[in-house]
Amino acid sequence: MGPLLERIDSPDDVKKLQVSELPQLASEVREYILEVVSVNGGHLGAALGAVDLTLALHYCFSTPKDTIVWDVGHQVHAHKILTGRREAFRTFRKPGGLSGFSNKDESVHDAFTTGHGGASISTSLGIAAANKILKHPGKVVAVIGDASWVSGMALEAMNHAGHLKDDLIVVLNDNEMSISPTVGALSKYLNRILTHPVYNHMRKDIEHFMHRIPRVGDRMVDTAKKIDEGLKHLFVPGHIFEEMGFRYFGPLDGHNIEGLVDILDNIRKIHGPVLLHVVTKKGKGYKVAEDNPQKWHASTPFCVETGSVHKTAPVRTYTQVFGEVASELAAADPKIVAITAAMCDGTGLVDFSKKFPDRFFDVGIAEEHGVAFAAGLSKAGLKPLVAIYSTFLQRSHDQILHDVALQDLPVFFCLDRAGLVGEDGATHNGVFDLAYLRKVPGLTLMAPRDGRELEMMLRYGAHHNKGPIAVRYPRGAVAETQGGDLAQRTPADLRQGKAELLREGSDVTLLAAGSMVYTAYEAAELLAREGVQACVINVRFVKPLDEQLILDQARRTPLVVTMEEGNIAGGFGGAVLELLESRSAEIGPARPEVRVLALPDRFIEHGRREDLLAEHGLSAQAVRTTVLTALRERYGRGVSAGRSYREGQTPESRAV
Amino acid sequence: MGPLLERIDSPDDVKKLQVSELPQLASEVREYILEVVSVNGGHLGAALGAVDLTLALHYCFSTPKDTIVWDVGHQVHAHKILTGRREAFRTFRKPGGLSGFSNKDESVHDAFTTGHGGASISTSLGIAAANKILKHPGKVVAVIGDASWVSGMALEAMNHAGHLKDDLIVVLNDNEMSISPTVGALSKYLNRILTHPVYNHMRKDIEHFMHRIPRVGDRMVDTAKKIDEGLKHLFVPGHIFEEMGFRYFGPLDGHNIEGLVDILDNIRKIHGPVLLHVVTKKGKGYKVAEDNPQKWHASTPFCVETGSVHKTAPVRTYTQVFGEVASELAAADPKIVAITAAMCDGTGLVDFSKKFPDRFFDVGIAEEHGVAFAAGLSKAGLKPLVAIYSTFLQRSHDQILHDVALQDLPVFFCLDRAGLVGEDGATHNGVFDLAYLRKVPGLTLMAPRDGRELEMMLRYGAHHNKGPIAVRYPRGAVAETQGGDLAQRTPADLRQGKAELLREGSDVTLLAAGSMVYTAYEAAELLAREGVQACVINVRFVKPLDEQLILDQARRTPLVVTMEEGNIAGGFGGAVLELLESRSAEIGPARPEVRVLALPDRFIEHGRREDLLAEHGLSAQAVRTTVLTALRERYGRGVSAGRSYREGQTPESRAV
Repeated sequence: MGPLLERIDSPDDVKKLQVSELPQLASEVREYILEVVSVNGGHLGAALGAVDLTLALHYCFSTPKDTIVWDVGHQVHAHKILTGRREAFRTFRKPGGLSGFSNKDESVHDAFTTGHGGASISTSLGIAAANKILKHPGKVVAVIGDASWVSGMALEAMNHAGHLKDDLIVVLNDNEMSISPTVGALSKYLNRILTHPVYNHMRKDIEHFMHRIPRVGDRMVDTAKKIDEGLKHLFVPGHIFEEMGFRYFGPLDGHNIEGLVDILDNIRKIHGPVLLHVVTKKGKGYKVAEDNPQKWHASTPFCVETGSVHKTAPVRTYTQVFGEVASELAAADPKIVAITAAMCDGTGLVDFSKKFPDRFFDVGIAEEHGVAFAAGLSKAGLKPLVAIYSTFLQRSHDQILHDVALQDLPVFFCLDRAGLVGEDGATHNGVFDLAYLRKVPGLTLMAPRDGRELEMMLRYGAHHNKGPIAVRYPRGAVAETQGGDLAQRTPADLRQGKAELLREGSDVTLLAAGSMVYTAYEAAELLAREGVQACVINVRFVKPLDEQLILDQARRTPLVVTMEEGNIAGGFGGAVLELLESRSAEIGPARPEVRVLALPDRFIEHGRREDLLAEHGLSAQAVRTTVLTALRERYGRGVSAGRSYREGQTPESRAV
Repeated sequence: MGPLLERIDSPDDVKKLQVSELPQLASEVREYILEVVSVNGGHLGAALGAVDLTLALHYCFSTPKDTIVWDVGHQVHAHKILTGRREAFRTFRKPGGLSGFSNKDESVHDAFTTGHGGASISTSLGIAAANKILKHPGKVVAVIGDASWVSGMALEAMNHAGHLKDDLIVVLNDNEMSISPTVGALSKYLNRILTHPVYNHMRKDIEHFMHRIPRVGDRMVDTAKKIDEGLKHLFVPGHIFEEMGFRYFGPLDGHNIEGLVDILDNIRKIHGPVLLHVVTKKGKGYKVAEDNPQKWHASTPFCVETGSVHKTAPVRTYTQVFGEVASELAAADPKIVAITAAMCDGTGLVDFSKKFPDRFFDVGIAEEHGVAFAAGLSKAGLKPLVAIYSTFLQRSHDQILHDVALQDLPVFFCLDRAGLVGEDGATHNGVFDLAYLRKVPGLTLMAPRDGRELEMMLRYGAHHNKGPIAVRYPRGAVAETQGGDLAQRTPADLRQGKAELLREGSDVTLLAAGSMVYTAYEAAELLAREGVQACVINVRFVKPLDEQLILDQARRTPLVVTMEEGNIAGGFGGAVLELLESRSAEIGPARPEVRVLALPDRFIEHGRREDLLAEHGLSAQAVRTTVLTALRERYGRGVSAGRSYREGQTPESRAV
C-alpha cells in the first residue's frame, strides 16, 4: 500500500492533503483496488474510472453531513477505501466481508444500499428536499453514469428536480460505455457535446461577432438582442439540461483532479440544481482494462501484470445455453426477436446481436420501456424473447401486468440470475420472481432442472402462443455438470403444465422447482439410505401447476415438501398450499403434512451460493433432515425404525 | 344524434366526407359524448378535447392497417364512436357494455387495452419496429398527453425511438393540464414553446438579418455559417425533441381540423420518428367543462344544460378520511410530507397541498421516481406519506423493494382504490397489492375495516418507524355508512401485528381483511340463524399476521375461511395457508379445513363493485353458503341439523 493511502483513515484525512498530492493518492488507490479485485473478483472498470472523481468529491464535500449517492454503486471502491474501510476492503465481496456495492449497513458514508441503476437522482433529490424543509445545510451529490442517466426514473427525477429547484448536484459520469455500448438518442446527444470542443471557443468568437454587427433599425436591434440571448443557450453545450432546469457545467476531464476540485468548490456555492458533466475512462490507469473496457467491466480473479484471468475449469452455464438456443431459434424463425436492457453480454446475447442485428434490441437501462416495447413487437406478430435478470425485471412489474398479460400477448420472459446470485448480494438476488410472476393472470411460469431442460423450455416458450410465458434459471453452471444419476437422464418431453416424475416413493413427495430438482434428487438418495422412499417431482411449471399429479401424490404420501430458490412469501410453496386447500375435497381425509422450503422473508446478503442455500435449508442434507424430522413428528417414533411406520400406517389407517 | 354522425359506421365513412364537413361531425360527436357521459358518468374533459384530433387521425390514417395507440385511453370516446361502436357507446361503462378506455376485446381498431399513463410510445415503437421487420406498410401513431409524456417509460421510449429511427408518429396532445396541473421542468419547457409565438416569426427576421451581415475574413464567415446552422435549432421550437432524434412539428391548434389534416397528410410521408405537438383544450365545446377542466376531468352523471352534477346522498369516503387525517397529521408534526403522482385530487390531498405547499410533492405520472424520492425524504428524517392508487403503485414495485425496504426506511404507502374499482375496470382494479406488497421483506401491511379504522391506521402508520408500512383501502364510501351492528362498535386500539376479534364462535373462523370485515360480520349473522357460530376476526395486519390468534382459532374451529378483496394468487389467504403449514406442529392433529375466498386469478372487467364481489363469492350470502357447504362436506351431514355436529365431534374426536 502506498505511503499516502496508509494515512487515510477517513475523508478528513483526504482534506489534509494538498491538492497537488491527490494524483499520487489516486494512483495508490488504483493500485490497491487492483490488488484486491484481482484476488477477490468484482467490478473493476468503472471503479478505476471513478477514482479521481471520488477523491475530488471527498476533498470538496464532507460526508455524512453532505451526502454522496453513488448510482448502482459498482464504482464505490475508492469511496469505501477512503471512508474508514481501507483495511476491510481486503474482504471485498467475501462472505461476511464488504459488499460489492454501496451499503448503508457498512458505513454512515453510504446513504443507501444500491445495485439497480437510475435511482440516485430520485433519492438524492429526496434528501435535498428534506434538507430544505429541515433547514439542514448539507449538500447533496448524485453520481450517475451515462447508462443509468437514461433510465426512466432518472429522467423523471431530472424533470422533478428542475421543477423543485432545490440544491442538488448531479455528476453525470460519462464514460461513453455502460456494460454494453450505450444506446439511445440521449447518449448520442452526450457524444455530440463531447465531439464539439469548438463550443466554448465559439462563444468568444460570437461575442466578438455580435459586437461588429451593424444595428440598423429598431427591428434589427431587437432581433440582434434576441439572438444574443439565444446564442448563450445555443453555444453552451448541455442545453437539454438547461431546459430541464439544471445549470450545466462541462464537459470536464474526470481525471484532472485539480480541475475537478476547482469546479466542485465553485458549484457547491450555487443554489438550485446543477449538472456537472464529467468524462472518465473505464479502467483508467490499468491499460489492460482501458483497452477492453467491456470485458473489464467486472472480472473473476486475474493476474494484474498480464491481465490474464485465472483459469477455472470451463463450465457450461445457463447463460450460454440461453444465448445458443436464442440464436438457433432466430435462425429457424424470422419472427424471433430479442430484447435486453443494457445486458447484452450478461444475458448471453452477444452472438444473437451479431448474427441478427436487425432483430436485436438493447433498450438500455429501461426495463419498463423494454417490456412494453416487447408487447408492441408481439402485438404486430413477432415473437419477442425478453432477456432481463430476475432482479431487474422487478422494474417491469406493471408492464408485465398491464401491457403484456392484460393484452394476452405471448411475450417470452427469460430471467437469468433467478435465485441467489452469490457475491453480488441482496440487491441482485433474483428471489422475488416466483411471487411477482405467479400472480400475473394467464402467465405460464417455468423453471428448468438443468441446461438440457432449459433448452427444451426455450424452444417451448418461443412457440407458446397463449399469453405471456416466462422461464427463470439460476446464475452459473448448468446442473448436469454436477454429475450424478439425474445428469444421465434426458428430460422427458415437455407439455404445458405437466411435471416430470423423476422417482417414485410412498413416504414423502419432494416437489422441486428448477434449481432445486437436483438437490431433491440427491436428498431422495440420502433418504433411501434411511429406508425412506421419496417421490421426486420436477414441477417444471410453477404456473400452471400439474394439479393432477400433485393431488395424486398428496393422496399417496403423508408428507409433501416443496422446494424453491426464492422468497417464501407467496412463492411456489404458497401455490402448492393454495392448490391443496382449494382441492382438499379431492384429496380426501388423508391430507398430507406440507413443508415449504424456500428462502426466508428477508433480504439475503452476499456469500457463496451453495453456502447460503445450505444455511437456509436448501441443501440435500438439510432437506433430508427436514423430511426425517417431519416424519418423526407425524408418527411420533424414530425414523431409524426404517420402513416400520409405513408398514404400520397405511394411508387408510392415517385417515380420519 | 346529428345527421352526419348517423352515417358513420366505420372510419371509412369518415373518409367519405369533405374536410370542410369534419367540424360539423366533430360538433355532433361532442354532443353525443355529452349525451352519454352525462347519463353514464366517466371521463369527459380530455375526451371532448380530443374530438377534432380523432377525426383528423381517422381521416388521414386507416386503422387497423395503420395503428393508433391512445395513451391511457380516457380520451377514446370519439374513437369508439367512429369505429363501429356508435350505438354501443350508449352502454359506455355499463356492466357488460363498452369499457371506459381503449379495449382490445371491443374492436380491431383498439390495439391495446389501456389505462396506465405513458405506455403508448413504447408499445407503438414495438409495432413500428415489427412493421419494419415484417415489411408491413402500416403507419403507427401514438397519441399521448403532456402529463403522460413525462413518465419515465415514455421518456425511455422517446430515447429509444430516436435511436432506432423507425417510422413513428408521436402526437403530443398538450392540454396544459393533466388530472392535476402538470408539474415538472419539461412541462415548463412545453409552456415556453407555447408562449413564444415569436419563434416562427423570428425565423424570417433572422434569415433576413443573416443575409445582411458583412462576411469579413475566413473566421467570421465560418462563425456566421455555424450561427446560421445553429439558429435553425434555436428558433425552431422543440429542439429537445430534435435532440432526441425526432422531427418536431408544432405547436399546432388541435381544434383546427383542416390544419391537422394538412399536416398529418404530410407527416405520414416522412420516414423516421416525428413528434407533432398539438394544443387542445380540455372540455372543448362544453363551456362548463372548459371553465373548470380539473373538476370535469371525469364526472358522475350530470345535467348537460346547467353542468350541475346529479346529487346523490353525501357519503363519507375513504379518500376523504385519508385527506383529512393527512392534513391533521401534518399540522401536528412538521416532519410529515405527502407525495402523490398526478393524483392530488383523486387521493384526497387537495387540502393538504393548500395548507402545506412546501411539504406536498406532486411528482407527476412518475411513480418510480415518486417512491425513490420518498426514500430520500425518509432517509433525511422526514415522514413521507406516499398516496398512490393500488393499480399505479404496481409501477413502483422495484423501488419499494430496492429503494425503500432494502434500506429499511419507514415510508408510509397509502393505497387508495385497493380492490375492485367498479366502472373503470380491469386496468384500474387494485387487486394485486396484497401479493406484491406481502412479499416485501420487513414491510407492514394493513387494511382497515372502515373509515374509523383507516383513521387509526393512518395515525399509526405515520409514526411507525420500523421499515416500510402500507395501508390499502377501497374506493368509495366508508363501510360504517352501511350501518349494521359493527358500525356501532368503535375499533379497538391498534397494535403492531394484532388482529381485532369481533365475534366469538366455535364452528368456523372468518379471517377477514379490510373491506371484507363487514361482509364477514354480516355472514356470521346469517350463519347464526342456521345455528352455526362463526368467529369473526378483523385481521388488520396482512403482514405481520396475528399468528397467535390465528393459530388459536385454527385449533378451536374445524373450518377457517379467509376473505380478501384481491387476486387469489399469493395474497392474504396464501399468507394464512403458509402460516398454518409452517406452524402445523403447534396446531396439533386437529387441523382445520381452510377455504380461501378471494378474486379469481384473471383480469376482472368493469361492473358494479357489489355485483362483482357477489359474483366472485365475496358477498355475505355467498360466504354463508361456502361455510355451510364446507361444514357439510367435513361432517357429511346436513347443516340444518344445527349444532349437532359440534356436539358429536369434539376437536379430540376430529383428531387423527
